[in-house]
Amino acid sequence: MKKVRMGMVGGGQGAFIGAVHRIAAQIDSQIELVCGAFSRDAENSRATGESLALPASRSYSSYQAMFDAESKLPADERMEFVAITTPNFLHLPIAKAALDNGFHVLCEKPATVTLEEAIELSEAVKSSGLHFGLTHTYTGYPMVKEAKSRVAAGELGEIRRVVVEYPQGWLANADAEGGKQAAWRIDPKQAGASGCFADIGVHAANLAEYITGLKIDEICADLNATLKGRALDDDGAVLARFSNGARGIIWASQICIGEENALRIRVYGEKASLEWQQQEPNTLWMAKPDQPTQMLRAGGAYLSEVAQTFSRTPAGHPEGYLEAFANIYTQFAQMIREGHSYAYSSDIPGISEALRGMSFIESVVLASEKSEKWYTLPKY
Amino acid sequence: MKKVRMGMVGGGQGAFIGAVHRIAAQIDSQIELVCGAFSRDAENSRATGESLALPASRSYSSYQAMFDAESKLPADERMEFVAITTPNFLHLPIAKAALDNGFHVLCEKPATVTLEEAIELSEAVKSSGLHFGLTHTYTGYPMVKEAKSRVAAGELGEIRRVVVEYPQGWLANADAEGGKQAAWRIDPKQAGASGCFADIGVHAANLAEYITGLKIDEICADLNATLKGRALDDDGAVLARFSNGARGIIWASQICIGEENALRIRVYGEKASLEWQQQEPNTLWMAKPDQPTQMLRAGGAYLSEVAQTFSRTPAGHPEGYLEAFANIYTQFAQMIREGHSYAYSSDIPGISEALRGMSFIESVVLASEKSEKWYTLPKY
Amino acid sequence: MKKVRMGMVGGGQGAFIGAVHRIAAQIDSQIELVCGAFSRDAENSRATGESLALPASRSYSSYQAMFDAESKLPADERMEFVAITTPNFLHLPIAKAALDNGFHVLCEKPATVTLEEAIELSEAVKSSGLHFGLTHTYTGYPMVKEAKSRVAAGELGEIRRVVVEYPQGWLANADAEGGKQAAWRIDPKQAGASGCFADIGVHAANLAEYITGLKIDEICADLNATLKGRALDDDGAVLARFSNGARGIIWASQICIGEENALRIRVYGEKASLEWQQQEPNTLWMAKPDQPTQMLRAGGAYLSEVAQTFSRTPAGHPEGYLEAFANIYTQFAQMIREGHSYAYSSDIPGISEALRGMSFIESVVLASEKSEKWYTLPKY
Amino acid sequence: MKKVRMGMVGGGQGAFIGAVHRIAAQIDSQIELVCGAFSRDAENSRATGESLALPASRSYSSYQAMFDAESKLPADERMEFVAITTPNFLHLPIAKAALDNGFHVLCEKPATVTLEEAIELSEAVKSSGLHFGLTHTYTGYPMVKEAKSRVAAGELGEIRRVVVEYPQGWLANADAEGGKQAAWRIDPKQAGASGCFADIGVHAANLAEYITGLKIDEICADLNATLKGRALDDDGAVLARFSNGARGIIWASQICIGEENALRIRVYGEKASLEWQQQEPNTLWMAKPDQPTQMLRAGGAYLSEVAQTFSRTPAGHPEGYLEAFANIYTQFAQMIREGHSYAYSSDIPGISEALRGMSFIESVVLASEKSEKWYTLPKY
Repeated sequence: MKKVRMGMVGGGQGAFIGAVHRIAAQIDSQIELVCGAFSRDAENSRATGESLALPASRSYSSYQAMFDAESKLPADERMEFVAITTPNFLHLPIAKAALDNGFHVLCEKPATVTLEEAIELSEAVKSSGLHFGLTHTYTGYPMVKEAKSRVAAGELGEIRRVVVEYPQGWLANADAEGGKQAAWRIDPKQAGASGCFADIGVHAANLAEYITGLKIDEICADLNATLKGRALDDDGAVLARFSNGARGIIWASQICIGEENALRIRVYGEKASLEWQQQEPNTLWMAKPDQPTQMLRAGGAYLSEVAQTFSRTPAGHPEGYLEAFANIYTQFAQMIREGHSYAYSSDIPGISEALRGMSFIESVVLASEKSEKWYTLPKY
Repeated sequence: MKKVRMGMVGGGQGAFIGAVHRIAAQIDSQIELVCGAFSRDAENSRATGESLALPASRSYSSYQAMFDAESKLPADERMEFVAITTPNFLHLPIAKAALDNGFHVLCEKPATVTLEEAIELSEAVKSSGLHFGLTHTYTGYPMVKEAKSRVAAGELGEIRRVVVEYPQGWLANADAEGGKQAAWRIDPKQAGASGCFADIGVHAANLAEYITGLKIDEICADLNATLKGRALDDDGAVLARFSNGARGIIWASQICIGEENALRIRVYGEKASLEWQQQEPNTLWMAKPDQPTQMLRAGGAYLSEVAQTFSRTPAGHPEGYLEAFANIYTQFAQMIREGHSYAYSSDIPGISEALRGMSFIESVVLASEKSEKWYTLPKY
Repeated sequence: MKKVRMGMVGGGQGAFIGAVHRIAAQIDSQIELVCGAFSRDAENSRATGESLALPASRSYSSYQAMFDAESKLPADERMEFVAITTPNFLHLPIAKAALDNGFHVLCEKPATVTLEEAIELSEAVKSSGLHFGLTHTYTGYPMVKEAKSRVAAGELGEIRRVVVEYPQGWLANADAEGGKQAAWRIDPKQAGASGCFADIGVHAANLAEYITGLKIDEICADLNATLKGRALDDDGAVLARFSNGARGIIWASQICIGEENALRIRVYGEKASLEWQQQEPNTLWMAKPDQPTQMLRAGGAYLSEVAQTFSRTPAGHPEGYLEAFANIYTQFAQMIREGHSYAYSSDIPGISEALRGMSFIESVVLASEKSEKWYTLPKY
Repeated sequence: MKKVRMGMVGGGQGAFIGAVHRIAAQIDSQIELVCGAFSRDAENSRATGESLALPASRSYSSYQAMFDAESKLPADERMEFVAITTPNFLHLPIAKAALDNGFHVLCEKPATVTLEEAIELSEAVKSSGLHFGLTHTYTGYPMVKEAKSRVAAGELGEIRRVVVEYPQGWLANADAEGGKQAAWRIDPKQAGASGCFADIGVHAANLAEYITGLKIDEICADLNATLKGRALDDDGAVLARFSNGARGIIWASQICIGEENALRIRVYGEKASLEWQQQEPNTLWMAKPDQPTQMLRAGGAYLSEVAQTFSRTPAGHPEGYLEAFANIYTQFAQMIREGHSYAYSSDIPGISEALRGMSFIESVVLASEKSEKWYTLPKY
């Protein structure tokens, strides 16, 4: 079977997430990186391409140049989709240009800088007829899929309470701001109206909706810019009400010393409950009344088909973040091959999640400023 | 040294918390149970006394009878303090009667049913000159004291965020309501205006204030009566703002299947952070930037004096809930002996915590009903 | 119900284990400490008695004086049993004197210094008709009883492999030897022919036999005196073959920096397996093929009757080492009251475990010195 | 930079470890799979190659055919090294043929079926001047490298005790034998003289030597074929004495229900101790006397250079088994590029580990059959 051909915008030398995307794309041997506009710095882009063993002709100094040149290549040579890993404010123009040139798009989250932009993107996607994927990485973990599968099968009964937390500590000190990773995230021009919630809070909200199949309808928010001089939130807490009346807490922070990337979700239903933590992702806890709590493990023979499909190793051989990311890539590649007949096509976060994510981010910012307790999210 | 003599109201056969109080009182051989009015049911009271090897003459059928008879005994025979372990609505009359008769009072939380009652109790305590203790058990754990000690010593710097959670699952099903433990807790006449938050939410709030030394100034609350037909909250979440501006989350629930008694606190400061969980109480986690997280363990030679004082066994010999409770009792007995010259007298939750606790409970109920986001707590 | 009256030998001020015994004895209000010969130092004994609110007349300066005086008191006043908490070499003479005077004996482990002494003790116990208990504390944990119960019920099928480990770190440095706790344990005259294995290895072996119901038939041993100048083992490992052919590892050490009291057992059968760790004693793990591992928790409604009987608090209110110890005391008190009609009388470690324990210790020392691999234990 | 070109023997469709090798080889974009003799079944080999997007001409039906054809290709096209992932008994002939044709060899462990074969292989490697790597995967984990680095830096002082355990459960039932993974491992003709110890015990021994830098000098072994009818060990325990006198336990089993791949090592020194577990590989525990135990985490800024070099993601983004495997591949590719001037060339398990591993396996089998306690390993 031929590999699906991928181009990349962003991910030049020194960019963490770009390297992650490349590894994720290659783990399952389904995708081949054929070109890139890795940096606005032409020399960086060229050097990155060279280090990746790309022919010099396919390292481009701008995304426009890349889309232009690639679209002129023979159909069985040119890139089929682009992975966008730039700062947030560039997502929309790049994605639109890609779609205009007939390329599918796999985009880092958040999809855009504003909800308005997300709506514009959504229209572009729909009119293009092309695929759009959003790398909500954490949905790629097998045990997250297992959790979703069990909720969908009714094992928890009606969901009553959802608690999602996502503390990190890397912005706890002002010194951290000097780093490249930090710089754009705390700059409103590049990141948008939110810092912490656009970066990680939106992952937490997405995970809650992904697993429960519910929508967040109303929120009450309290965002903080903890460190003096910060223009954007670096911490915040949200109370939520879901579409079925379930209550939720969504808490995210980047000023929590000692926390690494501690995304954790607990879902409590009328018949059972679930817990999952990203830092030990191969375990899913399930509890039923008056029974011993069960430790479900990736690779277990008792897991659902979807969880088994997206594991590569037997139980006890830990898979991690890169494999979760690879699952998103592999799903996206399969959808390019098979279209919507692909069995797991509905499992890939896409334009709908892009709209809901931007709606969530924008609503959290607005709700936080209001004196009323509850704020109703626009419906998407 | 003579033991301090204790009487008891409540704690008849079948009552969980009464037996816990008795064990706690005796663990350190500082206190002797000399009498009790264990139940409004005279036969239960008598049988309880007999099972405890009390002389028949000192098992009373009412607290009034007990206070009356005991106050006529010789000073070196009669009870010195009463432990109150009845449903909430009886705390005030019993405590006042005890104080009127010259007995110190050690009372279960919440101190009363309303804030107004707590104010009345506070005045009675102050005018009596007697000691009043409140069994916020979780403050008795050595590692909680270690946490408080480290915050007080400035190791965390300014506190920025506090997250306390207290999920239980025992009221997740309507069936649970039949049990005696459940019955009065979900009955407004006996429990007061709140169920879950009067029962356990107040522990969470107390723990946050105990460890941080901060006060909760403002809250935003969302209480739920999840199960149909419940008159009181069985679940809820509170956003908080502390006196120094720190943000907080206080979440408590009794409908979380699989959760036992999962009180957990995390305190994030500008220089370090702490985490403690009640179900594994001998461990305290401490993190500083760019250093390995430290696992502090009860019995460790590196702990503060207070944590060492309130441990009985070497590291690795787990102490638990009953020993934490015993620490409160032993502290209270020492204060009776030594008065306020006792080194740890300020460490015992007392009438001030009673007032703050009732203020918290009442405020959470009021705040939950309001459409404004923030509610300012009365100052106590 | 009248309390059972207890006397004590050893446990003077400064002795860790004596205080533990007293707490354990009192937790369930079934036992009253009425007298003691707490120290060979008369002043220490007197002061200890005073601190425990004993009348001066019942603090004795020697165990002989105590047994003599107590046996002359009225039957309903004098002590009924003695708890022996002295260094090992004194166990035998004290126990024999107690039995000669008609007192039941509850003794610290190891029962004696040599197997020969244990045989002598066994004969004295049998001819006396009195009760003899051995404080193998770890058998007192509810989840250990649950494990034993499940093995006995056949849930594991035939046992195939047993792994018990018991590392501590407190003797890792020569400095530790100065302490009183260390001094006698590393002195052959007081401790006997083994240090680490007489102190803790024997607990590990006992736990394996207690839970599995199997006997250790053959061993291969490698004991070490790691620190220069030590006369006794401070570390060692034993391979074992059980009566049904199951293989075992029993490892104990006191030179493992960072280890506190990390007793842990794993039992693997043909149908299921179990794991328990002393430092988190309220959890028992159970695994069956192709099923999620189950986390059994103390207080769980699904536990066996015996595990429920020996818990005092609901799930999530951790009980620990002192409560496990109290279970042994309470069982022993019940047996004094009810004799062998007491439902759990066969659950109390007694003279049979004393013999097997001394046989194990002596065999490990002998086996370690041999060049042959396997050594057959004498049958007891 | 050009990718290093790799060929593969074994790893046809249905083979777990082959797929793992391919993922590992590609994660860092340093290696390109250019050809393979994936199966002795020509159709399987062809189909595997096609599924991997290889040109049909480079899927071979035998390793002989592959080496022959590849060696005739232009130097900048032909494979540079071969990865051998067949059953054990084929390792030697394939490796020798590869070396004879000028290809470097990266081989699954154990290197051969007998020690004699390993010696033959060693001579072939030495006379060829080519590189030979052995995929002791667990040495690839960053936190294992951190452990090795800290021991080498003297942080633990003299090593005193080492405990390595490696329980699995997948061969606990006879049914498991039907599977392809099981079949050859329990067949003496394909696996050699040992089952469990050749498969996983050798990993445990290698890990102990890798981290401590010590050699196992003497062993005492007790191997078992637990299930009736098994010709090879499925379980066993080894006592060890290391070159500096440190004592060790090496335990491995495949009949432990509930265990997945629970490799775990603890190293106790005179100044500090370390613990690492494969199933949560991003954490390394370090303890020093009278200090809180430290939790070292992959990605931590406080880690050694080597641990940082072989991580791809920031702390809290878990890497796992495949990334550890990739580290071995990437190191091997670098050594092909740079030769022994590569900074980490001495960190790659090679022919010396092959010899020591086969010596260990063969010695364990022989020692297990002897009635003497200790068996001295041949020196390699």
